[in-house]
Amino acid sequence: MALIVQKFGGSSVADAERVNNVANRIVETAQLGNRVVVVVSAQGDTTDELIEKANEINPNASKREMDMLLSSGEQISIALLAMAIEKLNYPVISLTGWQAGFRTNATSGNARIDKIDVERIQSELDKRNIVIVAGFQGLNRYDDITTLGRGGSDTSAVALAAALQADKCEIYTDVDGVYTADPRIVPDAIKLDEITYDEMLELASLGANVLHNRSVEMAKKYNVKLEVKSSFRKVPGTIVKEVTNVEKMLIRGVTRDNDVARIAIIGVEDTPGIAFKVFSALAKEGVNVDMILQSIGHGGTKDIVFTVTKNNLTRTLAIIEGLKDSMHYQEVNHRDDLSKVSIVGAGMVNNPGVAARMFEALFAADINIHMISTSEIKVSVLINVNNAERAVKVIHDQFRV
Amino acid sequence: MALIVQKFGGSSVADAERVNNVANRIVETAQLGNRVVVVVSAQGDTTDELIEKANEINPNASKREMDMLLSSGEQISIALLAMAIEKLNYPVISLTGWQAGFRTNATSGNARIDKIDVERIQSELDKRNIVIVAGFQGLNRYDDITTLGRGGSDTSAVALAAALQADKCEIYTDVDGVYTADPRIVPDAIKLDEITYDEMLELASLGANVLHNRSVEMAKKYNVKLEVKSSFRKVPGTIVKEVTNVEKMLIRGVTRDNDVARIAIIGVEDTPGIAFKVFSALAKEGVNVDMILQSIGHGGTKDIVFTVTKNNLTRTLAIIEGLKDSMHYQEVNHRDDLSKVSIVGAGMVNNPGVAARMFEALFAADINIHMISTSEIKVSVLINVNNAERAVKVIHDQFRV
Repeated sequence: MALIVQKFGGSSVADAERVNNVANRIVETAQLGNRVVVVVSAQGDTTDELIEKANEINPNASKREMDMLLSSGEQISIALLAMAIEKLNYPVISLTGWQAGFRTNATSGNARIDKIDVERIQSELDKRNIVIVAGFQGLNRYDDITTLGRGGSDTSAVALAAALQADKCEIYTDVDGVYTADPRIVPDAIKLDEITYDEMLELASLGANVLHNRSVEMAKKYNVKLEVKSSFRKVPGTIVKEVTNVEKMLIRGVTRDNDVARIAIIGVEDTPGIAFKVFSALAKEGVNVDMILQSIGHGGTKDIVFTVTKNNLTRTLAIIEGLKDSMHYQEVNHRDDLSKVSIVGAGMVNNPGVAARMFEALFAADINIHMISTSEIKVSVLINVNNAERAVKVIHDQFRV
Repeated sequence: MALIVQKFGGSSVADAERVNNVANRIVETAQLGNRVVVVVSAQGDTTDELIEKANEINPNASKREMDMLLSSGEQISIALLAMAIEKLNYPVISLTGWQAGFRTNATSGNARIDKIDVERIQSELDKRNIVIVAGFQGLNRYDDITTLGRGGSDTSAVALAAALQADKCEIYTDVDGVYTADPRIVPDAIKLDEITYDEMLELASLGANVLHNRSVEMAKKYNVKLEVKSSFRKVPGTIVKEVTNVEKMLIRGVTRDNDVARIAIIGVEDTPGIAFKVFSALAKEGVNVDMILQSIGHGGTKDIVFTVTKNNLTRTLAIIEGLKDSMHYQEVNHRDDLSKVSIVGAGMVNNPGVAARMFEALFAADINIHMISTSEIKVSVLINVNNAERAVKVIHDQFRV
């Protein structure tokens, strides 16, 4: 008898009809003889509506009270989903995050799961109950409710699968699985049957919007077998695991990410410790830097170019301005009309020609590259945003079998 | 430094503006040097909206899951109210029922408070926090969330005041206090400065709609000083306590209750144990009987007449029908076009003429009395419903100073 953890997002339970659909999917899994634990998010727009209510009263509310407020959203959805399963005459029980044993650190609004005390869930499974658990939430050591931040319900599901040593963790989403490119841009994009954790991590952080990074990292750490599949269509999804079969395509996916701002510090005095000064100042302020390029020094100066997300642009410029006295540079400029297009695939580490084939496709399409960054399983380029969709298409074509 | 428990109902926190008003009231109390614990209900129609959501999915949902669902309503209102107080720069913390230590029995949907572990609240008060507590809810011994049923938030507030040995429990409502009659019917009704627990109990159960009976019973048991006052207007309310000063009026109030159905069992065989048979059968089915009248037997038969609430009428008639074989009666009839009008006052026990003055007023107004019931501090009559408002007026006039 297998133990399966299933996770359904907010859009999968947005209204009564969808809640009933999800209940059917869950009961079908149970009827196959599986024990089932389900992690569910707040319904559709509930979280946004609650945030709006809070903003109307106090836009600067404490994170502790925001967590108290927002965690009610999942409490509503677990109760409704349990009621839908009761109607199908299957034994079921809903549990809030704290009832399910989720213990977190004290970082309200963005808590980390410290451990899960699974006694209650185990005892409910022993009573043959389907167990419905509120995602996104836990309890800190002061007995205050916390939320896990973005992608929290994915993380709840994977952590639970790890703690329960589940046979599989199924993540139900709006899409059928992980594709080689966004099917809305590249209609003949291919759905992958399998993908490694590392490839999925690169795809997730590159904006593929399927699984949140934290959940993939946790799945890799605890070797949880993930499957990304559709809440609406009954077709096989994409399995995420440690080692995958060799597939036909050299790369696993082409992605683009338009949330990119590039800052260039021009004419920096060429002395040791400059990069440290810039990036430690940014890190101290919590600004994540993505791509970094430092030109070779000539004439006693060099240029430092890097990218951040757009919401960090203003803050980053202010921080650099504040460094003016201590580091000496000629000027700072920035652009926010760029896109980062990337290819990902574990196979490319053994295929030195992969990056060249990507550049070739862009050259043939007359698309200029502003910046390049590579890792063992990824190549990213920065190009003008109005070329981004075309770039995804021509690169996908280039690598198609 | 006094400790005050304040309770605000759903309409007092129905929207952002009202939440802000309530926050101001609370902070004003704190600024006078009081420690303040606040019990709050779910906002306005939240509970009804959640019930609707549940009915759409499963009209026969378990009470356990209904409690899980409904308790989210107060969780939302405590967070929002805490945020409004944060904006006023006062230290504040919100606590759910289980965080506040409310332990109940296992009767989902209508749980009884077994005890309150006040450690958490005490420690928050010691940190100078205003403490906002979710009313209407607690936790049973299986660590499942329960709700207290109708009037639950009043009961939460009184129980908390008792457990904390608070100096006062203020119940904020839509009205200024307890009146000698419904001011919408009797414009010159008088607001009472004080009333005893027993008088309040009779008024509450007679449909005065100010305080729920369970909360008054608990206040009497633990000698909690209650004050009923307006959430909107800053005027003194009505104090409910053990012994009150003598007031000018002989009675404390005139009430009417239209939720009355009268059943008459005519021509019952005059043998011992008949009343027992009828009323134990009703009690077994959970039907509460209010007024009871049994005629003196003549000709070997007697009549049994009693009243129930209208929603119990059909069930009651079915139960009586089921007794037909074992008790022998000629016929059963019923009326649901009646009203119960009552006068309440601790003073009447020493004033034998009180009931007579009430009957005189009704006679003068040509209002026929169908049934009479009396207790030490109350006289109730059953009359035609279309006479009810007029009856309240003429009785109130009769007793006015």
